[in-house]
Amino acid sequence: MKIIEGGVCAAKGFSANGIHCGIRKNHSKKDLSLIYSAVPASAAAVYTTNLVKGAPLTVTKNNIKNGIAQAVICNSGNANTCNANGIEIAEKTCELLADAIGIDKTDVVVASTGVIGEPLDITPIKNGIPELVAGLSENGSGSAAEGIMTTDTAKKEIAVSFEIGGKTCTLGGIAKGSGMIHPNMATMLVFLTTDAAISAEMLQKALSGDVANSFNMLSIDGDTSTNDMVTILANGLAGNEPITGEGEEFSTFMKALNTVTVALCRAIAADGEGATKLLECSVKGAKDELTAKIVAKSVICSSLVKAAMFGSDANWGRILCAIGYSGADVDVQKVDVRFKSVQGEILVCRDGAGVPFSEEEAKAILLEPEIEILVGLGDGDGAATAWGCDLTYDYVKINGDYRT
Amino acid sequence: MKIIEGGVCAAKGFSANGIHCGIRKNHSKKDLSLIYSAVPASAAAVYTTNLVKGAPLTVTKNNIKNGIAQAVICNSGNANTCNANGIEIAEKTCELLADAIGIDKTDVVVASTGVIGEPLDITPIKNGIPELVAGLSENGSGSAAEGIMTTDTAKKEIAVSFEIGGKTCTLGGIAKGSGMIHPNMATMLVFLTTDAAISAEMLQKALSGDVANSFNMLSIDGDTSTNDMVTILANGLAGNEPITGEGEEFSTFMKALNTVTVALCRAIAADGEGATKLLECSVKGAKDELTAKIVAKSVICSSLVKAAMFGSDANWGRILCAIGYSGADVDVQKVDVRFKSVQGEILVCRDGAGVPFSEEEAKAILLEPEIEILVGLGDGDGAATAWGCDLTYDYVKINGDYRT
Repeated sequence: MKIIEGGVCAAKGFSANGIHCGIRKNHSKKDLSLIYSAVPASAAAVYTTNLVKGAPLTVTKNNIKNGIAQAVICNSGNANTCNANGIEIAEKTCELLADAIGIDKTDVVVASTGVIGEPLDITPIKNGIPELVAGLSENGSGSAAEGIMTTDTAKKEIAVSFEIGGKTCTLGGIAKGSGMIHPNMATMLVFLTTDAAISAEMLQKALSGDVANSFNMLSIDGDTSTNDMVTILANGLAGNEPITGEGEEFSTFMKALNTVTVALCRAIAADGEGATKLLECSVKGAKDELTAKIVAKSVICSSLVKAAMFGSDANWGRILCAIGYSGADVDVQKVDVRFKSVQGEILVCRDGAGVPFSEEEAKAILLEPEIEILVGLGDGDGAATAWGCDLTYDYVKINGDYRT
Repeated sequence: MKIIEGGVCAAKGFSANGIHCGIRKNHSKKDLSLIYSAVPASAAAVYTTNLVKGAPLTVTKNNIKNGIAQAVICNSGNANTCNANGIEIAEKTCELLADAIGIDKTDVVVASTGVIGEPLDITPIKNGIPELVAGLSENGSGSAAEGIMTTDTAKKEIAVSFEIGGKTCTLGGIAKGSGMIHPNMATMLVFLTTDAAISAEMLQKALSGDVANSFNMLSIDGDTSTNDMVTILANGLAGNEPITGEGEEFSTFMKALNTVTVALCRAIAADGEGATKLLECSVKGAKDELTAKIVAKSVICSSLVKAAMFGSDANWGRILCAIGYSGADVDVQKVDVRFKSVQGEILVCRDGAGVPFSEEEAKAILLEPEIEILVGLGDGDGAATAWGCDLTYDYVKINGDYRT
């Protein structure tokens, strides 16, 4: 497997574009993105479990229930959620795009991100679609990644190439963060494409299986968004024998998928609202995987752990505290905690109690922008990793006045 | 029922004191407090459900298993948790106090609050106990309330008087916040006293029943502490016929207890770490009480709601979002949301969708230091209230560098 350039357009037959159409007042910010496959593709998606669901999710779910899609359109600046005519607007968007590009309107995945509760005007979308379609390009991943950004400070894209049955396949994607992120059986906006041939059923199986260990192990602020969605389109242009069941090819595909999703998870966490540090909590020695997941997620979600990491403070007691209230079945007398970064690794807690350590050495480790929190539970073989970020002044600043 | 002065010493036969004994380096901060009853009292307590439990909780639980206690000793500056000899230090504290005051060492409630994971030196406690005991006073509630403060900016005390069987009874308490607060079947440090005569069994029943609607509906930061504890001592000196079962007297007692605990909840929330606003979320129209509680707690715990309130931003979409991911069974199409303060009340969402409202008017309401978030679910008679605070720069500042 090889990491390559090209993001969501790296796979054969995919093009993309992102423009400013006028949903946002700021002209320098793109607000409408398109991803297009030259041929109809197998499609799969996972959605937020929030009972308040964005209108675009309902329309998308309906559109891809036959397992086929050919385009993804997404606006930023307005979530098209909790308003009077959201479904109508989302359907109209699909229709306008389908007409402009010459595909069926039910082969469109539609998504929105931004403020909840305000009406979304169709006019700028309608006026922007001709330019959006005209600008489709195999080099368009970057501009599409920009068009879906909200409080993100960096665009997020990645792709990998791999082999299935002697054929070179490619899988890539773009994602947006960066607040209201605490996926639960679904996640934030992530659009993935691949030229691998795979049935819609196996594609859904791959995606649902993957998010349990990738996006569902990510938290920026504990708030599960109303508009979370991950979709993947697989257009088969790599020419491999289609994957229609489990086996070596499916495993290879899953591995490629996981490489892309974990990279996007890390990118989203590192660019969490106001974040200065990427936090990765790896739990080992749990009695089972679920226990490890609960513990890792609890540590990553703790406001106090996040604030301590912002201050580069080796306050491991807060990690023990978060393990203790996680609800997981853990013997706290067996818990070990280490901090790790490119500066080295340091043991701060053994068997549930503090050990003497150099504060200076710990500080040097924690001043780095990527921190690993290593937790050993001494109770079995269960392991899991979760990703998050520190809690900073800027998180408060960004969210104290988001709408204005 | 009447709110009166005197806090934890308002009830007959109780005295208290708080001193600086040297656990903290800052001489101007008290760090050791004592509450004493002239006669042995019925005792009850609830404790944190965190699996990581402070050593003092284990010792207290053992000491009051016979339902009797006569004194409460509590230090701040060190949680005496996750260290090698915590139990030994907590037991020694009880022994030293019991010897100095002439009571049985198993009649002592012991508590600690502060940094987790550092050894607690018995020396300053040992040296401080004579002064602590000598200074016991019926006017000592304030100094005892100061001695248990950590990042609190204000001491928290209250008392009420009420009648049971023609006898005037009094119930009062002190509490400390102000971070790592997300009680779960138990709570932060709260010490309550009453001169009402009540059996230990009914006292425990009253306390356990009350916390479900008071301290367990409070959250500052989502982190359930390792050292949470609420205790109540009832010494019977009011001379009422002892309460030994349900009935009118027990109801009166519960009402007095709830008045005190809700006042302390509000005081803790208003003084949450870095807080500038007290938030109260009242949910009505839920299909049952549990649903109302889940929704109220979810809104109060949302980092995004808390940050919006800091910015006085009527971003009600975040409230809908928090209701949607709460896990409660709610029809989102029936949800109404209002903001209220001394400046008035404003409807911002009806039937799950935004309604036009004056941003100016909303801002004026939200600029106040006490905000009510009123949620109507339109689905039944279940109601609940939860308390919390806004998320501010100062929360991050306080917790980015707590240990140094």
